[in-house]
Amino acid sequence: MLSAYEIIAKKRDGLELSEEEIKWFIQGLLAGKVADYQMSALLMAIYLNGFSSKETASLTDVMLYSGKTLNFNAQHVVDKHSTGGIGDKTSFILAPLAAACGVRVPMIAGRGLGHTGGTVDKVEAIPGFKTSLSLEEFQRTLEKEGLVLIGQTGEIAPADKIIYGLRDVTATIESIPLITASIMSKKLAEGAQGIVMDIKVGNGAFMRNKAQARKLATSIRNTGLRFNRNMMTVISDMNQPLGNAVGNSLEIIESIETLKGKGPKDLTDLSLHLAGGMVHLSGLAKTHSAGIRKAREALKSGKALKVFKEMIKRQGGDEKVIDDYGILPLANNHHVVAASRNGYIKKMEATQIGLHVVQLGGGRQKASDKIDFGVGLTFHKKIGDRVKEGEPILTIHHNENQKELVLKMADDLLERDISFSTTKPQKLPSLIYETQTSWY
Amino acid sequence: MLSAYEIIAKKRDGLELSEEEIKWFIQGLLAGKVADYQMSALLMAIYLNGFSSKETASLTDVMLYSGKTLNFNAQHVVDKHSTGGIGDKTSFILAPLAAACGVRVPMIAGRGLGHTGGTVDKVEAIPGFKTSLSLEEFQRTLEKEGLVLIGQTGEIAPADKIIYGLRDVTATIESIPLITASIMSKKLAEGAQGIVMDIKVGNGAFMRNKAQARKLATSIRNTGLRFNRNMMTVISDMNQPLGNAVGNSLEIIESIETLKGKGPKDLTDLSLHLAGGMVHLSGLAKTHSAGIRKAREALKSGKALKVFKEMIKRQGGDEKVIDDYGILPLANNHHVVAASRNGYIKKMEATQIGLHVVQLGGGRQKASDKIDFGVGLTFHKKIGDRVKEGEPILTIHHNENQKELVLKMADDLLERDISFSTTKPQKLPSLIYETQTSWY
Repeated sequence: MLSAYEIIAKKRDGLELSEEEIKWFIQGLLAGKVADYQMSALLMAIYLNGFSSKETASLTDVMLYSGKTLNFNAQHVVDKHSTGGIGDKTSFILAPLAAACGVRVPMIAGRGLGHTGGTVDKVEAIPGFKTSLSLEEFQRTLEKEGLVLIGQTGEIAPADKIIYGLRDVTATIESIPLITASIMSKKLAEGAQGIVMDIKVGNGAFMRNKAQARKLATSIRNTGLRFNRNMMTVISDMNQPLGNAVGNSLEIIESIETLKGKGPKDLTDLSLHLAGGMVHLSGLAKTHSAGIRKAREALKSGKALKVFKEMIKRQGGDEKVIDDYGILPLANNHHVVAASRNGYIKKMEATQIGLHVVQLGGGRQKASDKIDFGVGLTFHKKIGDRVKEGEPILTIHHNENQKELVLKMADDLLERDISFSTTKPQKLPSLIYETQTSWY
Repeated sequence: MLSAYEIIAKKRDGLELSEEEIKWFIQGLLAGKVADYQMSALLMAIYLNGFSSKETASLTDVMLYSGKTLNFNAQHVVDKHSTGGIGDKTSFILAPLAAACGVRVPMIAGRGLGHTGGTVDKVEAIPGFKTSLSLEEFQRTLEKEGLVLIGQTGEIAPADKIIYGLRDVTATIESIPLITASIMSKKLAEGAQGIVMDIKVGNGAFMRNKAQARKLATSIRNTGLRFNRNMMTVISDMNQPLGNAVGNSLEIIESIETLKGKGPKDLTDLSLHLAGGMVHLSGLAKTHSAGIRKAREALKSGKALKVFKEMIKRQGGDEKVIDDYGILPLANNHHVVAASRNGYIKKMEATQIGLHVVQLGGGRQKASDKIDFGVGLTFHKKIGDRVKEGEPILTIHHNENQKELVLKMADDLLERDISFSTTKPQKLPSLIYETQTSWY
């Protein structure tokens, strides 16, 4: 007979748990037969003693089947997930790009968490946009239209919510196998046949160094393969905001600009890279570069922009936003932060930048906070750029009553969060560090 | 500002916690501000990453001061604690021995736990004996009479009960620092100036090997020294029952027999060794061997037996028990287990032997179980003894309705729990492996 005690003791002693033991434990947790304090002891033992790829797959499996799973009656279904970063709005660009190439893109996205924004929060800046479709509507829309975007639902992998809640307060978040099971249980439930995973690395990301990011990439690919999914992992930089805009409405505008071919280079390139990966994984392009070429054509022809506009309309949003950004909630006040001397931008504290936007009201400090869509930051310079004294580095978009906060923030940004050097920095962060594809 | 998350993360990463952090965490747990699932994550991190002697002292300190502490207005107060074993009834012998030599012995004892019996359960086999004195009565009696025995009270180190309860279900019991803090927080609260600690090692004990036992001994001595206590640690064998009797009334009888000078050699020797240690620690004997000599005199003269009798009377028990074992609850049925062939006893599974007594009703399977004082086992042979076919090895003391259980038990004992060899075993377990004394 299995017991929670024996299972904890086994992992405590560094032994491998069987699939049966992992299932028994998690199902017991969900049924209230295993206590949360037993789960947290096991989580710490997993954190410290590790979890094999077989154990990770078993945990993913039981979390996956703790809720509903989708099974699309359609081909070429490929999903994308990002581990989260500052100014990461690629979803709004790559989803239409891939869909325009014939990929079916089922997106179930999250809300803002800590210092990073959330795809669902951002898209809700568009007046009328509905992210709360039922799973049945979601499935029907995907099969018929090929592109749909909704928010996380409690019906998908409910075990993850419970376990994540415990990890969040017991210092067991940063564990590769636990991160893998959390991400993959949700993504596998969403029914895609291929998954592109954008793993952010840097001072604005969960993964602070490349070795950790590589381990997570391998763990995620291995888990995907065990569940018969085609997998692509991309390790991309998060040592500065992606693109120039951070903040909900501001990021929607930048996404539309990018779909019009006028976006910042880093955002455009990464979106094409990921969208091209989705086209490739779907089987609609023989190679990744062929996929990227197709995505680029969909960008140039304006087809992707049209696909995005249609999705907005279909989900109740005001599609006039494509041509009139004025219908978005926008901040009335702008404070320009300018360089105090000549030099080069050497480094940015991306997490701090994310927290500034939260502080302006662009994200939540607690779950019940209401988001102010209009506020945020736009950057006029990136790492490696030359700045002259008095030249604008960034603009703070804020509300009338935030002047004091904004002055302090400008000070922090110049003195603490952005570092300068007198000579051009030798080594700039790359955009993409590594891409790996695994076919099951 | 301190946070439970940061403290868990620090220990998770193998760093040393400050006294302030440990106090904040445990006081938060007691106040309901730190959750039990956070405590269990920290316990697992301590189990796996260790706890320095400074950290252990801080934990002991905050647990100690979670409840009442005693401070006797008397000299020569020395306490004794055993980590628990099968048939361990030394308390009933060494306490009167030491008290007869002038040591004041304040005993706060536990009830049965798992496969081991409890001192409080055993003494309650004596009709009328009261173990539930208030702490005030306890203190007054100790100061006036020099010997008193009560059960654990919730007033002493209540934090230990909460933490032990969590450890018990999260596989974090067998951690040297956590065991140290649990034992020492209670023992230090009981106000003794010296503590003799009998650490059992073997297949019937918590500590399964000598290396572990030695680590625990060092940890306990170090912690005692930090709190200005004189400490003696004894590592003694628990690979077979101590003495011949296992079971509540049976152990009381064997204790009285030993105080009459007719006890088994191992039990007599260990009791004298420990009592002599108490006399030495109290300052009433210059050396441990001088202490043992004094204890032996108190045994021979019958003074210790008289002291025991007086304690029984003082605490409401029927002191006629000293001369008439018939007033104890005793089992009516006896089943003799005899050797099935010639040979030597090579090994005993002491834990299994303890569990047999629990199964007969001599211990609790759950906290609400009522104890049957009369049942138990008496051994006629020990490890290394020669046995002839048909010769009795042990007797099962049981009730009328347990015949089926007893037949199965006899079978298990002969076939599984006691091993035989045809030649005399080369190496027999010693009684005492190591004794160390530390003066603060």
